[in-house]
Amino acid sequence: MAKVLIAQGGGPTAVINQSMVGAVLESRKFNNVDLVYGAFHGVRGIVDEELLDLTQETTHNLEMVANTPSSALGSTRDKPDLKYCQEIFKVLQAHEISYFFYIGGNDSSDTVRIVSDEARKANYAMRCIHIPKTIDNDLVVNDHTPGFPSAARFVAQAFIGANLDNSALPGIYIAVVMGRHAGFLTAASALGKKFPDDGPHLIYVPERVFNVDKFLADVKATMDRYGRCVIAVSEGIHDEEGVPIAVKLAKNVEQDAHGNVQLSGTGALADMLCDEIRTKLGVKRVRGDTFGYVQRSFIGCVSDVDQREAREVGEKAVQYAMWGDSDGSVVIDRTGFYSSDYRLVPLETVAGKTKVMPDEFIADSGTDVTDAFRLYLRPLLGSGMPDAYRLRQNLVPRVLNP
Amino acid sequence: MAKVLIAQGGGPTAVINQSMVGAVLESRKFNNVDLVYGAFHGVRGIVDEELLDLTQETTHNLEMVANTPSSALGSTRDKPDLKYCQEIFKVLQAHEISYFFYIGGNDSSDTVRIVSDEARKANYAMRCIHIPKTIDNDLVVNDHTPGFPSAARFVAQAFIGANLDNSALPGIYIAVVMGRHAGFLTAASALGKKFPDDGPHLIYVPERVFNVDKFLADVKATMDRYGRCVIAVSEGIHDEEGVPIAVKLAKNVEQDAHGNVQLSGTGALADMLCDEIRTKLGVKRVRGDTFGYVQRSFIGCVSDVDQREAREVGEKAVQYAMWGDSDGSVVIDRTGFYSSDYRLVPLETVAGKTKVMPDEFIADSGTDVTDAFRLYLRPLLGSGMPDAYRLRQNLVPRVLNP
Repeated sequence: MAKVLIAQGGGPTAVINQSMVGAVLESRKFNNVDLVYGAFHGVRGIVDEELLDLTQETTHNLEMVANTPSSALGSTRDKPDLKYCQEIFKVLQAHEISYFFYIGGNDSSDTVRIVSDEARKANYAMRCIHIPKTIDNDLVVNDHTPGFPSAARFVAQAFIGANLDNSALPGIYIAVVMGRHAGFLTAASALGKKFPDDGPHLIYVPERVFNVDKFLADVKATMDRYGRCVIAVSEGIHDEEGVPIAVKLAKNVEQDAHGNVQLSGTGALADMLCDEIRTKLGVKRVRGDTFGYVQRSFIGCVSDVDQREAREVGEKAVQYAMWGDSDGSVVIDRTGFYSSDYRLVPLETVAGKTKVMPDEFIADSGTDVTDAFRLYLRPLLGSGMPDAYRLRQNLVPRVLNP
Repeated sequence: MAKVLIAQGGGPTAVINQSMVGAVLESRKFNNVDLVYGAFHGVRGIVDEELLDLTQETTHNLEMVANTPSSALGSTRDKPDLKYCQEIFKVLQAHEISYFFYIGGNDSSDTVRIVSDEARKANYAMRCIHIPKTIDNDLVVNDHTPGFPSAARFVAQAFIGANLDNSALPGIYIAVVMGRHAGFLTAASALGKKFPDDGPHLIYVPERVFNVDKFLADVKATMDRYGRCVIAVSEGIHDEEGVPIAVKLAKNVEQDAHGNVQLSGTGALADMLCDEIRTKLGVKRVRGDTFGYVQRSFIGCVSDVDQREAREVGEKAVQYAMWGDSDGSVVIDRTGFYSSDYRLVPLETVAGKTKVMPDEFIADSGTDVTDAFRLYLRPLLGSGMPDAYRLRQNLVPRVLNP
């Protein structure tokens, strides 16, 4: 009888539990599966032997957890090296795990790749499958990644509101959106735009070099045109040398084990950009928000397309493992407008690689998206997207000062 | 034939357009009403004679606008003095306005009071009614104010997600919530708590003096107990002398015409508190978010109770104006669990006064709410509140290190 182990890694998403529950429930349908385990806090929980028996969980509660954002098994920022992966393999072997599923981004897929190598070298029979997840939408091969559509929906909805707020009390509004190297999530702000004069009027993604003088000129031009300005900025914007604008002014730079600088969980970038505008352009009403952790774990703002696909990549991973004869990473293909399907690709195809926005999604101005991007993203946001309406401008003739 | 003028003032809310549309549609039911005008950007639009003819608007579009957050007529931060109010009155008189409705907070109700006085002094027949609105929930007499329940729902939902995120990747998480003098909105974070060890573990409201050393001790005690800490902080927290903690460190202090210091639209308070924790407690993973403008204008996170009541205060305002013989402010009474009703009270009862959280809503610790507050707030959040679930802890026995 076989044992299954499932773990979640990296930043939580609104639908990562769908994938976990999809893998658990699908595993339990196979006769050869005896027990389904979950690791507490990803690979960290494996090496610490902190495992949960998910076979003892009720289907009802699993369904409730599937609809709950963030990683129910806990996550980790540990990026295992070879030694760490050997530790992981030792525990998997000790618990006689035959199927290992790791839900995560490109760092997690690299971990699966190394563990898979270790198992093969040791002649230990184990299927290792990576299940995709990341709000950054930066996994290669995949048309998009589970978690991104829901985060994108939050960002689009937030910008609908931010634009309306800025329209009611005009001024300059900047919101910083997550995204270290890939601008997909920041670009999603454009889907909050309905009328031609709606914000975001300016969108800055890490795929383009950020120049402060150019930025100020863009803002001034927008103010001259609309008397207000709504701006979406990716936390990962950087100068010509690739130095993040956020790092330039952050006093305490914190790095995680992956060598990544802390860009989230601080309002510094938004505040600095606001200061620049106040000082250089002399505009008084300048406001900066940083969407922060709310955008990836907000409950009650989820794309149903994302939920379905996150569930399915979990289910498909188990099917590939049980019926197939190779390890790999599950990827999403777009097959229609809108439909999708899944494939298993070799781990090395996805592991450790980063996708960024293609040029065709970024307008020539460098501060807007193209219709190709709108066509790409809109179906992913799912059904029931809220919509903003405005009053028609039937002006009353002046009496005192005609 | 009579003319009606409606305006919106102060900070936008998710349901302020319900009140505007309620007043427009109700006005158009009265035979004596000829035209219904709306002022662009509150009192500023009145003095500038920037008026819209809302009688030419379709009922359908008005209903669509009612469901759209933020102030569709635009708003203003102008706080009219006597001279300004005389200007307002001059325009109302020139356009032969018989009914004036102003939707806003305590500053707006004060404006209505002065305009009402001017009309009486001039023997000009005009009904002036203040329609309540504010996410701060700080209008006296009112059980609560339209706009607050929806903002509270956003804050509660955001903390459900923030707690789950912090649980997946443990550390310290601080979110700064709007609220200058009243802590109601920050306290709403407690409604995001389900299991006993859920965050927010600490809640700081402006009704209690904020002491940095006490704060650090609270955080340390929570970390010792749970290994993580989720904190809700009101932007208006202040020291013994009443100096806002945010002001203490803000480089550029900006004040609006009401003498209010800018506390929103900057991440400075959250960042400063994070720095304190990093420096003094030596904790590495400390994250600070500032909910910012998203919390008051987010589309798609609205309390249906709030929508209904916001609509009704607009309708009732018109009924009081048409059938009554005195100016006033519409207030909400709680009449059951849960039901509410409306009254008209004299303008001077509400105008320019601020309500704060009563002691019975704040726990003795000063860092939590009471069950009385939960009982007060829960019905206001409306139907369909999302709920978080977790996996049961069926631990697998260790094999390698039993």
